Amino acid sequence: MTGQTRLSWTDVRDEIQARILDRTYAPGDKLPRDNDLALGLGCARTTVHRAMQDLARIGLVERKRKGGTHVRADPVTRATFDIPITRREVEQRGSTYDYRLISSAVEPMPESVLLRFGSSEPGEALHVKAVHLSDSKPYIFEDRWIDITTTPDILQVDLAGSSANEWLVRNKPYSKLDVRFFAVNAKGENAEHLSVAAGEALLVIERTTWIGSAPITTVRSVTAPGYQLSAQN
Amino acid sequence: MTGQTRLSWTDVRDEIQARILDRTYAPGDKLPRDNDLALGLGCARTTVHRAMQDLARIGLVERKRKGGTHVRADPVTRATFDIPITRREVEQRGSTYDYRLISSAVEPMPESVLLRFGSSEPGEALHVKAVHLSDSKPYIFEDRWIDITTTPDILQVDLAGSSANEWLVRNKPYSKLDVRFFAVNAKGENAEHLSVAAGEALLVIERTTWIGSAPITTVRSVTAPGYQLSAQN
Repeated sequence: MTGQTRLSWTDVRDEIQARILDRTYAPGDKLPRDNDLALGLGCARTTVHRAMQDLARIGLVERKRKGGTHVRADPVTRATFDIPITRREVEQRGSTYDYRLISSAVEPMPESVLLRFGSSEPGEALHVKAVHLSDSKPYIFEDRWIDITTTPDILQVDLAGSSANEWLVRNKPYSKLDVRFFAVNAKGENAEHLSVAAGEALLVIERTTWIGSAPITTVRSVTAPGYQLSAQN
Repeated sequence: MTGQTRLSWTDVRDEIQARILDRTYAPGDKLPRDNDLALGLGCARTTVHRAMQDLARIGLVERKRKGGTHVRADPVTRATFDIPITRREVEQRGSTYDYRLISSAVEPMPESVLLRFGSSEPGEALHVKAVHLSDSKPYIFEDRWIDITTTPDILQVDLAGSSANEWLVRNKPYSKLDVRFFAVNAKGENAEHLSVAAGEALLVIERTTWIGSAPITTVRSVTAPGYQLSAQN
């Protein structure tokens, strides 16, 4: 049969998934080598490789550089989400985007920002507050700090004309990202800039980026009531 | 030089990233073929391939099966998150896990559940409500529906003894996943089962899974105040 059957990588993935399900390969087990699976199934090694990548992506198996492939003992729900530039996100929903700068100033970083950067060295950073609007209604209030050592160019950017969000995403690739989601009750600035009553439940998306170990920016995006973020496998 | 220099895939990734940053390859541009890049850099094609996978993973380039690699015209913040079994999540934080079944009954699916499943056919499903506890305090209140056509076995499971969450993750691999995050103000059942005051802001994680196009389960996990979900690139 070898070399005759033309299994697609999805066929191979489904077959391996079925074997994991029926405990042919039990949680924690090491799977046969890609080569041996390919021989057994009568397909190319690269087809097994592609199938394994997908099973790893959904969190069913773990691939180790030298140690082969294992069935995860503790399966996880793994999903990937994309957060586009806020302007894009609004426009993709068919709405009109607008942006309003509230303030922009170089200030000493508070303890909370140093913590997010994982830095213990006090210093100054550019503190920017802005509101993104969708069809003239507040959509996201962002409270952002930008490291002016790694990103001195930001001081020349006209942040009243276009958002730091957009400039950074287009001009400042990062190597490391941390994202957190949590809920807060609206109060103070959050309530004011989103024009909502105090107490309203709001989803916060907090993002911090680094290039190597040097911080670029950390931002709290407080979203308007009803905001949903979605992700798929 | 070719074949002499030993560039690692991270070197190659950093070099390509630098070229995207300095606009050698501008947003929307097609990148040279992996082979040509490899020749130019004096490394193996597989090294370029590995570097490109990483740049695609962080959302800087897009790979198309036949169309080669492009610099994304609209960069996105892309991150991957893992949601472990809730018991594991609690135990990994060094806390003691406990679980309490509130109710379990076969009931007609309401409109909202049909919508989440993307199904228009009315029918019955297993409706399970439960609380996960961390150090005896409510941690997550889950309100779950399980399709008994794709998952009839669930009717034999003792859901008072162990959670549907655990049984499903261990026994019911899915091929398609949708996850949503949003914030709600505590009220009714959510407030009651999490023992919080009405009005408190709570993060909700809503997950729906399918095998092929057939629904498996949809669950709303309402988390206790202060809950954070984090993700990395």
